[in-house]
Formats: sequence, C-alpha cells, structure tokens
Amino acid sequence: MVTANQFTIVYDVLSFSLATMMATTIFLWMRVPSVHEKYKSALIISGLVTFIAAYHYFRIFNSWTEAYEWTAEGELSATAKPFNDAYRYMDWLLTVPLLLIEIILVMKLPADESRSKATTLGIASAAMIAIGYPGELAMSDDSLGTRWVYWIGAMIPFLYIVQTLLVGLNDATQAETDPAIRDLIKGVQWWTVISWCTYPVVYVFPMMGITGDAAIVGIQLGYSVSDIISKCGIGIMIYQITIAKSYALKKGNEETPLYG
Amino acid sequence: MVTANQFTIVYDVLSFSLATMMATTIFLWMRVPSVHEKYKSALIISGLVTFIAAYHYFRIFNSWTEAYEWTAEGELSATAKPFNDAYRYMDWLLTVPLLLIEIILVMKLPADESRSKATTLGIASAAMIAIGYPGELAMSDDSLGTRWVYWIGAMIPFLYIVQTLLVGLNDATQAETDPAIRDLIKGVQWWTVISWCTYPVVYVFPMMGITGDAAIVGIQLGYSVSDIISKCGIGIMIYQITIAKSYALKKGNEETPLYG
Repeated sequence: MVTANQFTIVYDVLSFSLATMMATTIFLWMRVPSVHEKYKSALIISGLVTFIAAYHYFRIFNSWTEAYEWTAEGELSATAKPFNDAYRYMDWLLTVPLLLIEIILVMKLPADESRSKATTLGIASAAMIAIGYPGELAMSDDSLGTRWVYWIGAMIPFLYIVQTLLVGLNDATQAETDPAIRDLIKGVQWWTVISWCTYPVVYVFPMMGITGDAAIVGIQLGYSVSDIISKCGIGIMIYQITIAKSYALKKGNEETPLYG
Repeated sequence: MVTANQFTIVYDVLSFSLATMMATTIFLWMRVPSVHEKYKSALIISGLVTFIAAYHYFRIFNSWTEAYEWTAEGELSATAKPFNDAYRYMDWLLTVPLLLIEIILVMKLPADESRSKATTLGIASAAMIAIGYPGELAMSDDSLGTRWVYWIGAMIPFLYIVQTLLVGLNDATQAETDPAIRDLIKGVQWWTVISWCTYPVVYVFPMMGITGDAAIVGIQLGYSVSDIISKCGIGIMIYQITIAKSYALKKGNEETPLYG
C-alpha cells in the first residue's frame, strides 16, 4: 500500500501533467493561423501529441484516484479496482510516431525523403511500443527472462530511432543556414533522445528488484517528467522553429510580420 | 469542523472564482484575432493562465464539496476525504511563470533581453513555488521552525522577482512613449506585486497561531481574491496593452481599426 503522502504526490503530479498537456495543446493550436502554410501540419500534429496525452492523463488520474479510498478513520486504503497504467502504452502507440513525424516535418528535407523518413520512423516507433507491451504484462517473478526478451526486442527499433535522429538526420540539420534554427533543431533531436532514455530504464526496474510502492511513485514521477519534456517541451521548440521559419519565408513582406 | 455558514461561504467563493476564470479565459482568447501578430502570444498566454486556474478551481471546488456531507438530521459533517489544497501549488507552478512571461512579452524590450528576462523570471518563480511547497506540508506544531526555513527560502526568489518588476524593468516602462500605455504597464507591475504579497502572509498564518476552521475560510477567501486580481485583473490589463499597441502599429490603416 502506498502511504497518504505517496498517494498525494502521484495525484498532484498526474493532475499537473494533465493541466500542462491541455495548456500546451491550446497554445500550439491557437498559434496555427500565424505560421506559414508549409508548417501548419507540423504545429497541428504537435498539438495532437499533447492533446492525446491530456486524454490519457485524464484516464490515468481517474484510475489512480479510484484505486484508493479514505476509510472512516481517515486512513488510505486500496479499493478492489487495480491502478491501470496500460493507458500509457496506448498513448505512446499514437504519440511517439506523431512526435517523430512532427520533427521530420520541420526539417530541411526533400519531399520524398521527408515522406520515407516519416514512414520508417513511424513504423519503427510503433514496433518499439508494440514489442515492449507484452513484456510489461509479464510481472511475476519467474517471468523476468520473458521481460528481458521483450526489452531487447524493443531496444532494436529504439536504437534505430536514436541513430536516425542523431546521425541520419545530421545532414539536414547542418543544411539550416540560420544558426538559431539549427540550434533549435539540434535541441529537439537531443531532448527527444534524452527524455526517451527514461522509458527503457524504468522498464528494467522490476528486473533490478526495484518493486513495490516506492517504485510506483518513482515510475509515475519519472514517466510524467519525461512526457512533459518530450511532448510539451519538444512541442514548444517545434513551435519556435515553425514561427522562425515562417518569419524567414515572409521577410520583406511588410504586411504580415510574423514574429512573436 | 467548519460551520454550515463557513462551508457555504467557501463553496460560493470557489464557485465564483471558477466562473470568473472561465469568463476571463473566453474573453481573452476571443480577442486574439484582433491584436497584432506581435502580441498574439501574450494574449493567448494570458488566457492560458486563467484557463489553468479554472481547471484547478474546478478540482478545488470538487475537493471542498467532497470533504463534507449533510447528515440525515440536516447537520454538516466531515467525510473521510481530506480537503486537498495542494492543487494551488500545482496551479502556481504553471501560472506564475506564465504570468511573468505575459508581462515581459508586452514590454518594450529587445528580443534577446526579453528572452533572458522571461527565462530568469520563469525559473525564479518556479523555484519560489517549489521551495514553498515542502514547508506547506509541514503542518504539525513542532515543525513551525521547518516552515520558517522554507518561507525564508521562497522569499529570496520572491524578492528578486519584485525587484525585477519594480526596478529592473523600469527603463523599459519609461521607454513607452504613450502615457496611457505606460500607466497600464505600471499598473500591471504594481498590481502583480501587491496581489502576490497575500501569499507569503497567508503562509505565515499557522506560525502566528492562526489555525483551525476560521483560518481555512480566511485562507480560501484570501487566495481566491488574490488569484482573481493577479490572473483576471492582470489579464485584462495585458489585453488593454496589446490592443492599444496593436492600434498604434496599425494607425493610418483605415481598413482594420483595432481599438475596442
């Protein structure tokens, strides 16, 4: 059983994440009319990622609060309803491919390469989530071997994605002439990789003997922080790239200065 | 236990605050298409502040009504669910940095100074909230010393923010040529500082021996009034600044008079 303080911390963090996802979604979508046609899709998709995450945080928050109740003595006790964390996998199955697509869409790539990179990264990331999920269900002590098999399986597409982001797309990043935009794109690539490293580490917790209620609190905190960085943080950086690129495209046209 | 009257007063004030936050949000967002590109972000962010506050007032209101129930005899009694006020901290962690950013965005500052000021004020205010929170959890009688330590810790970034708002940004305020705009910006700076002074005072209540149910009513009233001034009041003033500055930028263009 989690303690009352642990319960409250997870509760607050899930609610905070929900509010952050909703706020980011609205900001990104309200800025769509101000960017160039070329970048509207990237900005809408960035907002979709946080919107889908907001929906899942709403479900996770409700599942958390329904898994516990206060007894007449003012103590916290578990209800019969188990806390359902599988929502996170459903979330990632949608948001992780979209996140990679939004990055590809703001990069300087020829249309056909943009399409092929978006397709392979989309498929690789969906495969990564789908392979990881059955391992996540294997939680009994004698299935740790099974868990490792799925972990290794999911790491193959994961490493392919990391390699593509940091190496494969490097030429396109270097092709940016504006140093501010180049730094933003590098920032997007690195923060995506850094924040994603949380997930395979947390996955390994049960195999390392880290279990129980303290682990649950750590996992929920870790996932929430990673989600906020990789969805809201990256989303805001994508917005800055789209607005800077739109401004560059419109420069000289006095009628519609787009910076702001 | 709060009395039935105290229960009703807090209930009404929380509901009033929720309605005010929602109404302000809608007004600010509906005015976005009418301001100049340069000020759209500031206006959207002002609406985000009240939107995030509305979400949290909805949660606080629900937590308040679920913490009490009416017995068959028509008496008010406490339920097992404790009233959760930690939402306020989750709210401030998001809204206080955004509030400072919205002020910076409407001031006459070079782009790089605007960015650096928004960053330092954002970090200082998040630090202020994060340092205050552990002290707020220390509510037992023998932890008053702990509470003072966190209060002093949070006052350091607080005083830095006050100093920046009232002194550090003074040159930018004086650079405004339109006296009406200059007065509005001064108003924003002063009302922010005045309304924020409520929070460290309320924090000190338990250390002054002001506890119990009367204190709860006072705290909820005080926080709600301060929130309405610093979020809705400041938001409306930011709107007036953005619309006046947009009008100044568009002057001479008969087609799109922007004042209103």
